[in-house]
Amino acid sequence: MSDAKIRRPKAETPKGFRDYFGAEVTERKAMLDKIAEVYHRYGFDPLETSAVETVEALGKFLPDVDRPNEGVFAWQDEDKDWLALRYDLTAPLARVAAQYRNDLPSPYRRYAMGPVWRNEKPGPGRFRQFYQCDADTVGSASVAADAEICAMLSDALETVGIPRGDYVVKVNNRKVLNGVMEVAGILDPSDPTKFEVERGIVLRAIDKIDRLGFGGVAALLMKGRTDESGDFTEGAGLSFEQVEVIESYLRALGSYEAQLAKRSEQNRRVVKRLRELVGTSVEGCEGVAELEAIAEILDAGGYGPDRIVIDPGVVRGLGYYTGPVFEAELTFEILDEKGRKRSFGSVAGGGRYDGLVKRFTGQDVPATGVSIGVDRLLAALRAKGRSTGDTAGPVVVTVMDRDRMADYMSMVADLRNAGIRAEVYLGNPKNFGNQLKYADKRQSPVAVIQGGNEADKGSVILKDLILGAQIAKDATLEEWKDRPAQVEVPRGDLVAAVRKMLAQ
Amino acid sequence: MSDAKIRRPKAETPKGFRDYFGAEVTERKAMLDKIAEVYHRYGFDPLETSAVETVEALGKFLPDVDRPNEGVFAWQDEDKDWLALRYDLTAPLARVAAQYRNDLPSPYRRYAMGPVWRNEKPGPGRFRQFYQCDADTVGSASVAADAEICAMLSDALETVGIPRGDYVVKVNNRKVLNGVMEVAGILDPSDPTKFEVERGIVLRAIDKIDRLGFGGVAALLMKGRTDESGDFTEGAGLSFEQVEVIESYLRALGSYEAQLAKRSEQNRRVVKRLRELVGTSVEGCEGVAELEAIAEILDAGGYGPDRIVIDPGVVRGLGYYTGPVFEAELTFEILDEKGRKRSFGSVAGGGRYDGLVKRFTGQDVPATGVSIGVDRLLAALRAKGRSTGDTAGPVVVTVMDRDRMADYMSMVADLRNAGIRAEVYLGNPKNFGNQLKYADKRQSPVAVIQGGNEADKGSVILKDLILGAQIAKDATLEEWKDRPAQVEVPRGDLVAAVRKMLAQ
Repeated sequence: MSDAKIRRPKAETPKGFRDYFGAEVTERKAMLDKIAEVYHRYGFDPLETSAVETVEALGKFLPDVDRPNEGVFAWQDEDKDWLALRYDLTAPLARVAAQYRNDLPSPYRRYAMGPVWRNEKPGPGRFRQFYQCDADTVGSASVAADAEICAMLSDALETVGIPRGDYVVKVNNRKVLNGVMEVAGILDPSDPTKFEVERGIVLRAIDKIDRLGFGGVAALLMKGRTDESGDFTEGAGLSFEQVEVIESYLRALGSYEAQLAKRSEQNRRVVKRLRELVGTSVEGCEGVAELEAIAEILDAGGYGPDRIVIDPGVVRGLGYYTGPVFEAELTFEILDEKGRKRSFGSVAGGGRYDGLVKRFTGQDVPATGVSIGVDRLLAALRAKGRSTGDTAGPVVVTVMDRDRMADYMSMVADLRNAGIRAEVYLGNPKNFGNQLKYADKRQSPVAVIQGGNEADKGSVILKDLILGAQIAKDATLEEWKDRPAQVEVPRGDLVAAVRKMLAQ
Repeated sequence: MSDAKIRRPKAETPKGFRDYFGAEVTERKAMLDKIAEVYHRYGFDPLETSAVETVEALGKFLPDVDRPNEGVFAWQDEDKDWLALRYDLTAPLARVAAQYRNDLPSPYRRYAMGPVWRNEKPGPGRFRQFYQCDADTVGSASVAADAEICAMLSDALETVGIPRGDYVVKVNNRKVLNGVMEVAGILDPSDPTKFEVERGIVLRAIDKIDRLGFGGVAALLMKGRTDESGDFTEGAGLSFEQVEVIESYLRALGSYEAQLAKRSEQNRRVVKRLRELVGTSVEGCEGVAELEAIAEILDAGGYGPDRIVIDPGVVRGLGYYTGPVFEAELTFEILDEKGRKRSFGSVAGGGRYDGLVKRFTGQDVPATGVSIGVDRLLAALRAKGRSTGDTAGPVVVTVMDRDRMADYMSMVADLRNAGIRAEVYLGNPKNFGNQLKYADKRQSPVAVIQGGNEADKGSVILKDLILGAQIAKDATLEEWKDRPAQVEVPRGDLVAAVRKMLAQ
């Protein structure tokens, strides 16, 4: 069959997938390495499960209750078993905790970093494969485990380069939310399934407080709300009195000014107010006591309200949370795509989920953990100019004389042995301009040149490409006159001379 | 529905997949980080493609010609496109090189590390997901690119901990093999498809020289061979004269003793012998000239035959290689599962493949590269005691009094802030014996204890668990009498005292 008759395959990533090049890879790696160091110091051990799980083991715990149709990539293997790509790192942890329950230490602290896959409609900045970075403690019912996760999250953010004051870890408790809903009459402890739909609407409304304000939330709690586009969202149908209960709850945090005025006492003040609000609800009181204990432990460890605050507005979408929930928010402002200022927002979240392992074993296994949104945190570091991927290009040894390739290779060998990133030009050497264009594309700091004349003299020419680029930009040689853009040195001084040029 | 009626999911990894815990993860990461450093120094840039590709882009380039039925994990997405998990890192590179051909530097040097997936029958030590670690140069037809890959492979092996002398990088050239087959009359340059089956048998036979010796290979070249189990492998049907050509070729390397005697001249000697053998075959002469150039470049860079040798026995199974092929072999001996000595064998391989990118673009794009077998190299490092995963357990702060959790948490906070890996016991503290058992399972070096008495005095007790384990093993305290297994120190001295105990 001739070439012309063969239909050529398309060279394309599948829809919703992307490739990562150079600094994109090293930046992420540098960030994850720093986070892993923090997790390790906290006694967490790495766990790497495979990308593939049985559909049975993954279960139907897809995270976002707002989009229940969100799916996984799944296929049937030759034994007719259904396999799927993991959609998060928590479901595989639950499987591992059950599978190895007799061998793992208990409590089991583990961290995991790696890609997860979602079979959902891709959109701008929304990919079907992305990284997660989780830390969880399985087998501890103690709120000390939740407090530890919050402290560790705070340390991790500072370690990667988010300074104190530019972030806040917010803590809340699902039990407090339930207590308030009990007071509002939409949770009956003797019949937990009653008012389930209403509670779902209330939780999602509270989650939108930052965006909609009290007015918007109140509309959602009552008849419903029509947004700017004209779309109507059905409300929970609560009475005015019921809405007042929820609103008092949301106002428990106090105004931003009040928070700043007495920051050190803020957590204590919020706990006190929440205790009043949950009244006699058993679950609500339990939740408030847990929040109080978490704040106390964190305070004792030096993690005061300048880093970690109790915030009743935190809900977290996931259905499976059963106690404390947390969220890390970056508080500095960035410009959005329309040039408007807005605060950066959430980069991590988590909470206590006591039901996941029980699916497998039937036994209660308490667990708590956090997941860092790797891409969002990276974007934040880039916005702050704190990203640390290695972008330095290599020294490029050019090829003037194809027959002396061995000489050029021995130059790069010398440079590399001295720890200097270096490469020889391996394309067609005929056109020397192409070699310099290549060095430019590689962001090379120095080009090494040895033609026949230099070879006869036993010397090499070094071209300072960074200086060259600056001269080209500034269009004046004046300020660079003490620094030559090009030097000729003996071949034996190659390494020392390159090192000197790199140090300038 | 009651719990009893729910069929519980099985907590199992899918068949052929496995989990990696703790040091298994950090050991691999430490090794890959070191290799990445070498690749980076050689000017290679990282590339991370997604795990999922279109089946169309992956194509039918499954590596092992012996098992053509080996498959991929594939499924149809909602748009009816077939997607699949990548089976290696080369096919995605070919796709990337075609997709971004106008943006990438040319030549493009890239490295990639990550899991790949094979839908094949799992066996002992044979998994359906495993790591690969590749470096390739796309867009250079120069043998300097091949030589560079060999030198880099050699550096990478030494950097991870395989000392010089314990490995050898073997280089051969497919064109030389073809030249010899032309001389033997089983390759007709004017009709390349003729004798294809015979050449396949010959290549596979040569590949088995280490295991079968000349006798076994000769049988496969002629009528065929019956192995110990009684299985018959069909032969290539060559005549005695034809077999003699192949045998001379295989003997070109010379005896092991001859190699040792004149190592520095070995490559030159082999090249000379190969030149005689390929006679007038154009392709064969080209291949020999390439081998000679590679050896010359490597020699000039200091990579002599103590590290890199020309070895006619290297074939490499992949159908797509078109020129130089390489293989890194570890030469030290280990004991196999039956206690017999055998040399460790191959840990990396690669070569030049000029057809992969052409599939997409129709244009010739030369490429060469190497893939390191991550699991095999890790196993080798473990066998040599050179693996460097972090296995140190954390200091464990025990909990004597549940109400003083904040105190214990502040102790671990102090230790962590001093850079010491530490954790508080987060299980049920009722049974103190369980806490020490936990510390033991965590391989903890030191346990910190503070009961009511110590709290009143403002002190803590430190228990040296490594010493404790040694005493328990040796059953004598005599030799440890200067080193107390347990000390009581003021709470304020906690960090200093732990540090001292860890340093012992």
